[in-house]
Amino acid sequence: MDIIEIIEHKRDKKKLSQKEIEFFIEGYVKGEIKDYQASSLLMAIYLNGMDKDEIAYLTEAMRVSGEVWDLSIIPGIKVDKHSTGGVGDKVSLILGPMIASLGAKLAKMSGRGLGHTGGTIDKLESIPGFRVNLTKEEFIKQVDEIGMAIIGQDKNIDPADKKIYALRDVTGTVSSIPLISSSIMSKKLASGADAILLDVKYGNGAFMKTIEDAKNLATTMVEIGKSLNKDVKAEVTDMNQPLGCAVGNNLEIKEVIDTLKGKGPKDITEICISSGAILLNQAKLFNSIEEARKAIIENVNNGKAFNKFVEFVKHQGGDISYILDPSKFDVAKNIVEVYSTKEGYVHSIDALSIGKSSMHLGGGRETLDDVIDMSAGIVLNKKVGDKVSKNELLATLYTNKDEFWSVKQNVLDSFIIKKEKVKEEHSLTHEIIE
Amino acid sequence: MDIIEIIEHKRDKKKLSQKEIEFFIEGYVKGEIKDYQASSLLMAIYLNGMDKDEIAYLTEAMRVSGEVWDLSIIPGIKVDKHSTGGVGDKVSLILGPMIASLGAKLAKMSGRGLGHTGGTIDKLESIPGFRVNLTKEEFIKQVDEIGMAIIGQDKNIDPADKKIYALRDVTGTVSSIPLISSSIMSKKLASGADAILLDVKYGNGAFMKTIEDAKNLATTMVEIGKSLNKDVKAEVTDMNQPLGCAVGNNLEIKEVIDTLKGKGPKDITEICISSGAILLNQAKLFNSIEEARKAIIENVNNGKAFNKFVEFVKHQGGDISYILDPSKFDVAKNIVEVYSTKEGYVHSIDALSIGKSSMHLGGGRETLDDVIDMSAGIVLNKKVGDKVSKNELLATLYTNKDEFWSVKQNVLDSFIIKKEKVKEEHSLTHEIIE
Repeated sequence: MDIIEIIEHKRDKKKLSQKEIEFFIEGYVKGEIKDYQASSLLMAIYLNGMDKDEIAYLTEAMRVSGEVWDLSIIPGIKVDKHSTGGVGDKVSLILGPMIASLGAKLAKMSGRGLGHTGGTIDKLESIPGFRVNLTKEEFIKQVDEIGMAIIGQDKNIDPADKKIYALRDVTGTVSSIPLISSSIMSKKLASGADAILLDVKYGNGAFMKTIEDAKNLATTMVEIGKSLNKDVKAEVTDMNQPLGCAVGNNLEIKEVIDTLKGKGPKDITEICISSGAILLNQAKLFNSIEEARKAIIENVNNGKAFNKFVEFVKHQGGDISYILDPSKFDVAKNIVEVYSTKEGYVHSIDALSIGKSSMHLGGGRETLDDVIDMSAGIVLNKKVGDKVSKNELLATLYTNKDEFWSVKQNVLDSFIIKKEKVKEEHSLTHEIIE
Repeated sequence: MDIIEIIEHKRDKKKLSQKEIEFFIEGYVKGEIKDYQASSLLMAIYLNGMDKDEIAYLTEAMRVSGEVWDLSIIPGIKVDKHSTGGVGDKVSLILGPMIASLGAKLAKMSGRGLGHTGGTIDKLESIPGFRVNLTKEEFIKQVDEIGMAIIGQDKNIDPADKKIYALRDVTGTVSSIPLISSSIMSKKLASGADAILLDVKYGNGAFMKTIEDAKNLATTMVEIGKSLNKDVKAEVTDMNQPLGCAVGNNLEIKEVIDTLKGKGPKDITEICISSGAILLNQAKLFNSIEEARKAIIENVNNGKAFNKFVEFVKHQGGDISYILDPSKFDVAKNIVEVYSTKEGYVHSIDALSIGKSSMHLGGGRETLDDVIDMSAGIVLNKKVGDKVSKNELLATLYTNKDEFWSVKQNVLDSFIIKKEKVKEEHSLTHEIIE
């Protein structure tokens, strides 16, 4: 077997065998197969696709390319949650304490933000002292003891994905469903959870622009789960406006706290409850989604969900005085209010533009080397469907940069306001695939 | 402009602009664009193709990527000839002296052999003392003085092709018409001839397996010529059996000598005369192909063609005593005769298998680092159409290796002999595209 032959097979639309895919992944991780050969194969995969079997072989080969964590020492069903990334997406940080307070075991590795989307790990690091790099032993112990831990992607897990992901980024081979799905699933499967809930977002703030693409990706990942005997479910959800109101690291942590206290925006509250209920069902702690929803709402109301968040932050070294008194968080020196120039109803808020604006204010990274300003970002005062008067506050920008005028204009332009009312709201969750 | 965007355009089946193609070639030659990006783009070109304009832009960008030789100091029309490579193809070495003896100016750079096909440069090097690396000044002087020079590809010409060719070889992107045609034509156009005749071979011993592919490649290259205002013609010729009888370096030089003396095999004699006549016509030395043919035949019969070959060898430092007495050439220590096991007519001789057999006997390179045994190879005693008796000689193998038994069997198996006569011979030249 040699790599040129494997490239030629995919180039000529032949189905790759499990052995060929293993040969590629093993050889590439060892450096025996060169970047220029891998990128040629990735482009052939991009253009000629892969079937269900090939995607499962690829995922499995990547999964075992490094360490595979065994969480079986923790009693019960371990769950994991993954979002394909959006603007203002702080769901895991809310849903985690909600379900852990009801006995679930959330064992999650998460990523950093790049471009217009934020990353859970960056948001957590806005809490002074918070450690995102627990050892495997610390991680397991914490999930066992308090029901949740969220850490950065462990560097020994899935080295194949690390190499392939970096290569795809510079070779025009990012937006391929076989490559995206195997990348996500191989990492998730290597980190040891028994049941996984995926949130595949669509819309202009998401990676997948259309419902069709998002459904296709979601279905592919659920099928990988089936092929490899894992309980995987996927929600297809709307990312045409930011999720919640806060976009930016410590701004989002404050919204997490509000939401766990029952005072969060309606959309983020609802998606955390509904996704949490699915996970509690996957964890076999509740037989019905309805009962699970009720239990979550109860634990928000009685404070148990919030207390679990405090416990979680404390266990990972975070300074809980910030959680108990969010006014302690750094506030950016420039606070810029954006007012509506017309009257009417908000028909849409361009999530991509809001995400990029937050990045430009310092809240995100344009390149991997950029340093994030934890206090920078945007808080929306109006969301889709809301009525707006002329000169009413639409959003507030937070930044330590002094040049924010073009961003201010972009944020204003992100709001599409029309005279007529917005037709019936549609649910954030378009479909659940299982 | 950035390379990722260019890759994405070709990936998404968009037409690349001249500026984008120039950006790629310039950046890749400078090393600013990486191998892994180039290979991703090459695979996208392989799978999504290029139109006439893109191929012309690519050829032109490659042509000017290094030195461009100006032969205008030599009076008259300078001609060049290129074959896509076959087994036993020594046409340039025969046709060159034929047309130079009639006043043509052949200025040719040529390649080395790899795999089952031989290279003109290797064949010339089997003549002791022969220099294939003249300087530009020596090359121009010789073409001017004696009407022909054949040298190796100059290392300063078309560095883009060198890099891209090496990369294609290891990334499964060799057999792409836009990439093959731009590779051939950029080199040919950079080396300065005014008129070019291409011999595009089809059949199992050729790079293009079918007439359709060969026609497609030939047409593409003729179109490149038109786009860049060069007189380019292409013959589409059969490579389903070896050309002539000799395969292997000094064995082929001996056949060159025989053919220039009018004693060569029928097929090689005919193609040299017909191709030579086209070149004489392109050089505007003869207005009709028929007159040019007659003149060539006359110069073979009166010895002028052979004498021109002697002059050519002498000018490039070769020892002409070998040309005047070919028995001086080294003869391999093992001479192995292959006899027919049945009676009938030769219906085909597998050119690919004969080429590989010659390589295995030492006459060719499996990898670029292999050293060629100049005396190794195969001489066919029978060609397609010939009648064969049982135990009659089919071919003779020449080798210094002691393990030749499996090669002997392969050569025997290359001959397909059937009871019935072979139907009417078809012409070697299928079509001329201009």
